[in-house]
Amino acid sequence: MKKNIGQTILKNAKKLIPGGNQLLSKRSEMFLPDYWPNYYKKSSGCEIWDLENKKYYDFAGMGVTACSLGYANKKINSAIINSFKKGNLTTLNSFEEFELAKLFIKIHKWAGMAKFCKSGGEACLIAIRIARAYSKKQNIAFCGYHGWHDWYLSANLNNKSSLDSQLLSGLKTDGVSKTYTKSIFPFYYNKIESLEKILKKNSSIGIIILEPMRSTVPKNNFLKKVRKLADKYKCILIFDEITSGFHDHFGGIHLKYKVDPDIAIFGKSIGNGYPISAIIGRTKVMNKSQDTFISSTMWTDRAGFVAALETIKYMKNKKVQKQLVNKGKDLKKFWNIVAKKSGVKISVSGQDSMPYFKFEYENNLEISTYFTQEMLKKGFLAGNLSPMSISHKKEIIRKYKKNFKKIVIQISKILLAKEKFPLMGPVKHSTFRRLTD
Amino acid sequence: MKKNIGQTILKNAKKLIPGGNQLLSKRSEMFLPDYWPNYYKKSSGCEIWDLENKKYYDFAGMGVTACSLGYANKKINSAIINSFKKGNLTTLNSFEEFELAKLFIKIHKWAGMAKFCKSGGEACLIAIRIARAYSKKQNIAFCGYHGWHDWYLSANLNNKSSLDSQLLSGLKTDGVSKTYTKSIFPFYYNKIESLEKILKKNSSIGIIILEPMRSTVPKNNFLKKVRKLADKYKCILIFDEITSGFHDHFGGIHLKYKVDPDIAIFGKSIGNGYPISAIIGRTKVMNKSQDTFISSTMWTDRAGFVAALETIKYMKNKKVQKQLVNKGKDLKKFWNIVAKKSGVKISVSGQDSMPYFKFEYENNLEISTYFTQEMLKKGFLAGNLSPMSISHKKEIIRKYKKNFKKIVIQISKILLAKEKFPLMGPVKHSTFRRLTD
Repeated sequence: MKKNIGQTILKNAKKLIPGGNQLLSKRSEMFLPDYWPNYYKKSSGCEIWDLENKKYYDFAGMGVTACSLGYANKKINSAIINSFKKGNLTTLNSFEEFELAKLFIKIHKWAGMAKFCKSGGEACLIAIRIARAYSKKQNIAFCGYHGWHDWYLSANLNNKSSLDSQLLSGLKTDGVSKTYTKSIFPFYYNKIESLEKILKKNSSIGIIILEPMRSTVPKNNFLKKVRKLADKYKCILIFDEITSGFHDHFGGIHLKYKVDPDIAIFGKSIGNGYPISAIIGRTKVMNKSQDTFISSTMWTDRAGFVAALETIKYMKNKKVQKQLVNKGKDLKKFWNIVAKKSGVKISVSGQDSMPYFKFEYENNLEISTYFTQEMLKKGFLAGNLSPMSISHKKEIIRKYKKNFKKIVIQISKILLAKEKFPLMGPVKHSTFRRLTD
Repeated sequence: MKKNIGQTILKNAKKLIPGGNQLLSKRSEMFLPDYWPNYYKKSSGCEIWDLENKKYYDFAGMGVTACSLGYANKKINSAIINSFKKGNLTTLNSFEEFELAKLFIKIHKWAGMAKFCKSGGEACLIAIRIARAYSKKQNIAFCGYHGWHDWYLSANLNNKSSLDSQLLSGLKTDGVSKTYTKSIFPFYYNKIESLEKILKKNSSIGIIILEPMRSTVPKNNFLKKVRKLADKYKCILIFDEITSGFHDHFGGIHLKYKVDPDIAIFGKSIGNGYPISAIIGRTKVMNKSQDTFISSTMWTDRAGFVAALETIKYMKNKKVQKQLVNKGKDLKKFWNIVAKKSGVKISVSGQDSMPYFKFEYENNLEISTYFTQEMLKKGFLAGNLSPMSISHKKEIIRKYKKNFKKIVIQISKILLAKEKFPLMGPVKHSTFRRLTD
């Protein structure tokens, strides 16, 4: 297999852009170092064409879970394009901003007000600012992944591995304000006692933030118990639904489990890839944002509101969440069957609409790299996380399954023979790592 | 004059969106409370249509200075639309991100690397993180406006009026982390001794950030002296060119004054209204971002890179900066003539491409509100700041001038008669203020 032209360009890009791009999860090193196509020329549905015009089916993220309606969805694009034609950022405001706030409040009965911004980490930061303004307490209990900002990374200031059990390990903190030391305390999903312990010990905690679901489902009424502890210790409860929102459940996973936070955050999927994020919350809490300054020009562009309005309406009309769940459940079932038949230890988890599997071996990263390498040869971008989109039609999934099965059988043979996996390049990274010097 | 339907909608919007929108500078209260059209239906060039289909010429911001190439510029839109048709955010990266980095480094010889994000405040925060990572010192000397984030607003934690002399007064800080107290120190534009004083006193300062120009030109080699002090005290020098960049001078105002920072930040104008911001810097400094985690999904959308590439190329090809400067100089000259002839005290300042005038009276806000009210009746969105765009054709400027003159003569009569200005609604705000309870 020849190196892709994308890798040559990436090598040059790394000289001008630290790490080569703007997002860890889109780095070649996270999939197939040296051989991942890296750049795309065009995309449509769940198909992507690389710079050499080679077509792939996307089973490796669908835009880091953002594009459930498929790439370049014509209906969404037509609304966005129409908006551009009328001017997307002017001296006056977009009335669609109000329409979008109404739509969010209609879907989330517990919430009374909404704010909008662009990036997900930015949305988390706005939520933290509002929560601090309301609670008057500074400190935070957290679980899960919440972006790159100081308030979050500072969890690692005191203990370099605080974040290791929270999705991404090895996050480095150079340049994070040292003043944040001991301002944020980790707790663990489905371990309610880990939350109660830190709340009991630290009366300075006024905010609890978590992803209501990442890989495993809440057990023993975990979310309800978190809500109860938030009330008991007078904390603002924030659900970060940037990844989980509008996937298994229209409106967000917290609606499925019927637990209401004080603030919820959405991003990614709500614009089908157009940059837009939302912060919604109870009126008394959200109104506190008027006692603090939170403001940005770029948050006012019309296309963002239009993209979210169209995406959410489309999801509602076409019962998109049901479609995604059905497709994902089917894939999970298939993975389990192949695991059983081949004897390869594969664990399956994640929201049904965003199924995830893992080779349960010490050299998991090596096996995964081999899997991605072989699937790429067959025309698939495939990793461990395979978010479904409405464009993942039966025929495409059938092809994926056929190849998946073949490759897992190869893997089982290599494992049995205790051979080294024939990798063309290095093993992929699982975490944050410096890429150039 | 009847109230605009936009005001009725805004009243409802304020129930669902704190303050009614996402940006202070786009609030009706900053222009003409109760009577500003507030929302737009469509826009083109420097023309905006409100929800009642009434057309206005924009002399009130051009999208908070972002849209120098005119609203819905066909050439830029065509590139953005083409990008949407090919899918704007996928699992793979956009090669235009590399092209854009190359373009920035070509324009700014002193810089070696670039990063991109969406909002301006976000770009400042990334610059601060990188600067802290490099300098190993935590504290900051600042001058000018740099957004809504904790590191900046914390200037007001210790002294509620620290930011009052830095563009926006009265910024409230509820929810800003108290740990930041005494981490940031203000200095004043063109007062080099104010910077030296704080640097001498605080060896903890490792970062100097300023807008290289806001309203007045640098005097007595101010920028060069700032550079010298940065070197003497081993500080990273950041120029925030989010508002100043690519207006009077292609590439940014620091290139005009031939002073190189260590990091420069751009936003607004570089995407002609599409959300995209840039952080560029010396290689050894920017590379430090690899020792800290800075990453976001929304920063990877293709249309952002495409919008900036097309906008900057267009500016270069059409010598846009020269056009803007000529138009603005002409307007400044005209304002001065009218002031002289009418006897109304008007001061004129700002970059030539973004001329600004002020009624030099104690009741300046009242007079300005009256001015905006009367200009609105004549079909102009007009405030004190009138950024030029290439769409401000001679004929449009001629119309503006005719009406400006008429209204200033009315103002001179009212002032002479010592009468109250006949305002239909309240006086506009000049600053951040809570809008609902």
